[in-house]
Amino acid sequence: MSLPTTYDALMAHERETQALARIAGRLGWDQETVMPRGAAGQRAEESGAMESVLHARRTSPQVGEWLEQAVAPDEDGAAQLRLIRRSYDRAVKVPSELAAALARLTSRSQGIWAEARANDDVAAFLPTLAEVVKLRREEAAALAEGGDLYDALVDDFEPNGKAAEFARIFDEMRPGLVALRERALTAAPVAPLSASFDMNKQMVLGQELARTFGYDLTRGRIDRAVHPFSSGSGDDVRITTRTVEDDPFNCVYSTIHEVGHACYEQGIDKAFLLTPAGQGVSMGVHESQSRIYENQLGRSRAFCGYLYGRMRDVFGDFGVADEDAFYALVNRVHRGYIRTEADEVQYNLHIMLRFDLERALFSDDLQVEDLEVAWNDRFKSDFGYDVDRPSHGVLQDVHWSVGLFGYFPTYSLGNVYAGCLHEALRRDVPQLDDQLAKGDLSAATGWLNERVQRHGGRFEPKDVITRACGAAPSAAPLMSYLETKFGALAGG
Amino acid sequence: MSLPTTYDALMAHERETQALARIAGRLGWDQETVMPRGAAGQRAEESGAMESVLHARRTSPQVGEWLEQAVAPDEDGAAQLRLIRRSYDRAVKVPSELAAALARLTSRSQGIWAEARANDDVAAFLPTLAEVVKLRREEAAALAEGGDLYDALVDDFEPNGKAAEFARIFDEMRPGLVALRERALTAAPVAPLSASFDMNKQMVLGQELARTFGYDLTRGRIDRAVHPFSSGSGDDVRITTRTVEDDPFNCVYSTIHEVGHACYEQGIDKAFLLTPAGQGVSMGVHESQSRIYENQLGRSRAFCGYLYGRMRDVFGDFGVADEDAFYALVNRVHRGYIRTEADEVQYNLHIMLRFDLERALFSDDLQVEDLEVAWNDRFKSDFGYDVDRPSHGVLQDVHWSVGLFGYFPTYSLGNVYAGCLHEALRRDVPQLDDQLAKGDLSAATGWLNERVQRHGGRFEPKDVITRACGAAPSAAPLMSYLETKFGALAGG
Repeated sequence: MSLPTTYDALMAHERETQALARIAGRLGWDQETVMPRGAAGQRAEESGAMESVLHARRTSPQVGEWLEQAVAPDEDGAAQLRLIRRSYDRAVKVPSELAAALARLTSRSQGIWAEARANDDVAAFLPTLAEVVKLRREEAAALAEGGDLYDALVDDFEPNGKAAEFARIFDEMRPGLVALRERALTAAPVAPLSASFDMNKQMVLGQELARTFGYDLTRGRIDRAVHPFSSGSGDDVRITTRTVEDDPFNCVYSTIHEVGHACYEQGIDKAFLLTPAGQGVSMGVHESQSRIYENQLGRSRAFCGYLYGRMRDVFGDFGVADEDAFYALVNRVHRGYIRTEADEVQYNLHIMLRFDLERALFSDDLQVEDLEVAWNDRFKSDFGYDVDRPSHGVLQDVHWSVGLFGYFPTYSLGNVYAGCLHEALRRDVPQLDDQLAKGDLSAATGWLNERVQRHGGRFEPKDVITRACGAAPSAAPLMSYLETKFGALAGG
Repeated sequence: MSLPTTYDALMAHERETQALARIAGRLGWDQETVMPRGAAGQRAEESGAMESVLHARRTSPQVGEWLEQAVAPDEDGAAQLRLIRRSYDRAVKVPSELAAALARLTSRSQGIWAEARANDDVAAFLPTLAEVVKLRREEAAALAEGGDLYDALVDDFEPNGKAAEFARIFDEMRPGLVALRERALTAAPVAPLSASFDMNKQMVLGQELARTFGYDLTRGRIDRAVHPFSSGSGDDVRITTRTVEDDPFNCVYSTIHEVGHACYEQGIDKAFLLTPAGQGVSMGVHESQSRIYENQLGRSRAFCGYLYGRMRDVFGDFGVADEDAFYALVNRVHRGYIRTEADEVQYNLHIMLRFDLERALFSDDLQVEDLEVAWNDRFKSDFGYDVDRPSHGVLQDVHWSVGLFGYFPTYSLGNVYAGCLHEALRRDVPQLDDQLAKGDLSAATGWLNERVQRHGGRFEPKDVITRACGAAPSAAPLMSYLETKFGALAGG
């Protein structure tokens, strides 16, 4: 038996930190699903106490000393050390007072935003938003150490992600997307559903689809929540969904989307359980999984044929004539203001708008007081019509109110990655459509697990995609997929 | 503005510790209600990490220093300091290695017990039990510092509770209970229910009864679990119940019992939220609340009249002729081996048996290998017939397997306290039965809140009862209540 090394000591400490972080995450799940509403005040203190324990562990000088001396036993160990170092360096760079001020502000600012949105009152939110931007800018300055402020923010969600590179990709996509949007919207409109769908049956179907897409319900569960989300890592990964009586696709595709996230977390190599590498490596890679599950697989013509049959079994005749009509319905492109309700074509335009605006805010090219005008101008230019009210525009998303700048681009990055993975998957699994048509997702999800999910934090985010696809990621596969699919749907 | 005092610093630290303890408690709730079964291994590590954080905080030398210098600002502050000192002294007395060894052993021993019980195999459990006793004895020795070992164990559940005093009370009760048991069992037997009761309707009725007894569901929730329990303090106090298709009283009285515990926690003065005094003061006082809700109120003739009507509304005719028959059924005394299924008369006999045996184990008058024989002899002597198998005898309870020695007597102490409180309540609220007959519990629960619940940890446990009743607790009120009630039911 050999003596424990510095690496072992560090990893033992990290294992406990990870276990505590899992508990903190589950507190969030509890809050959104089962917490009694009268417990909110007490919960805020509980969460604060947990964060302070985690902060102390993450900034512990002992971790710094261990990091100086630890020697990784192998490549996976080197990845662990890299991740611990990232987390430690980030944590110690931000002064505690600033971190505390940000926590205080953002716990308050979300409520102010929610009220402003409810009242369509931008002016009521802007002073708070200006404070949030100011503090996040200070934080970014502490993190960036002279580098790009916005990149420092991006780094929290997409390690080593660079805004300039995102911008290059997005700018390349944008004209094509605007054109495709025009084309889709001038085609014959697809009528929405006009039937009623039992909400308990929707949940049962959601459970079935979750299993179909490989979600292990012995290590997870599905509950209802206002906003669907996935939570947890390893052997306890829970998702939520929602049901809307006249729109079963809300439940169906929210579920499949969250199952994509959950399968990523559940599918990471067992050896990484409760270690820094035991989680999805970035928001972009995470979103690539949820998006490919939801869109490239779940909204494919082949799978829609299967799903149409299952929905007829469950709900009876719901007024959709055949598989093709069902496929057109599921991929319906229509005008709308709201990002979360957008289709595959328009979604990325929503993101690019936000990305460019927040980048401008942090490069000082845009002031908070000019944000609404800038939003509305850009919306008109990309979508072709005017925003009718702030809650349909600059006030629609929660992100900025809680300081989440640098997060939005990872949604589109995820779509780009999903496009790359889909292209490679089709190449490697030529009979994919035959399987999807039978509701057999095993080849697709097996490929994604093998190529992406099991690695957790083993590689840098972009390297995960490059290794999986055999080529560096680019927007071309996604654009080609969208143009083919929505061109055909528009009657091209 | 005055500078923060040492007391303030200590209380701020304690507040965070309490918040973390609430999180640890909620992990337990999660595990018993919603946790995916495949998460058990990960959960064990999470709980271990949380315990180690709490242990470090509770034994922190900084707390010791603060305690030496802190000056309480008022009487409530003095109570807080007393509680913090208790916790600190207890925590630092036990060597960490012993605490860790006990945690390791008891996490393993519960499974060994469960398997032994399933196989009715005492021999498979005894070596493990002997280890548990050995380590708990070492712990007791560290805590007792020369004092009584068993009292040191009791102290965890009933601060300052003394086994000799419990024994005096119990020995005084036992002959009367044995006689009352005889009398009840020679009376004409009451037939059990033989109908089926929709389990969802049982849950709906349970929710209604919970509200009737004053449970605030905006700060709580009811779920199903294998073993009913109450969990949490302050503004997030959750209970569980269970449903059995042919026995609606299981759900009804489990719910009312747990509501008693929950109302205690919910009813503590707001000023004590997330402080050491913000929890029920002892297991005995806790059980006094659950028992008086369940038994003296919930199984009273007056409330049974109301409940009979509600159950007829919910379930229709279930084969019970009238209120009197219903009352007799709810208070049916019959032979049985299992403590948790025992009626008000026999329950305390079960406890006294366990109390005397575990006291003997810790005074070395009884060896683990002789435990089964001792159990069976005592059972025969108090209950009048032989134990037919170990799972109906010495293997029936989980407590000993996880090292919970000193816990059992608090159940009967709770009954004794409930008897005292009930007598005082009847004296102060002469129209109680008129209200119970209408399903109006407000006077009873208001009295209990005012006299007991709101004080949390403000007073020593026994003082809570003495103040509430205007006299020191004794067994006489309980015995008088039981003899009157069950004497009449037995046709005397």
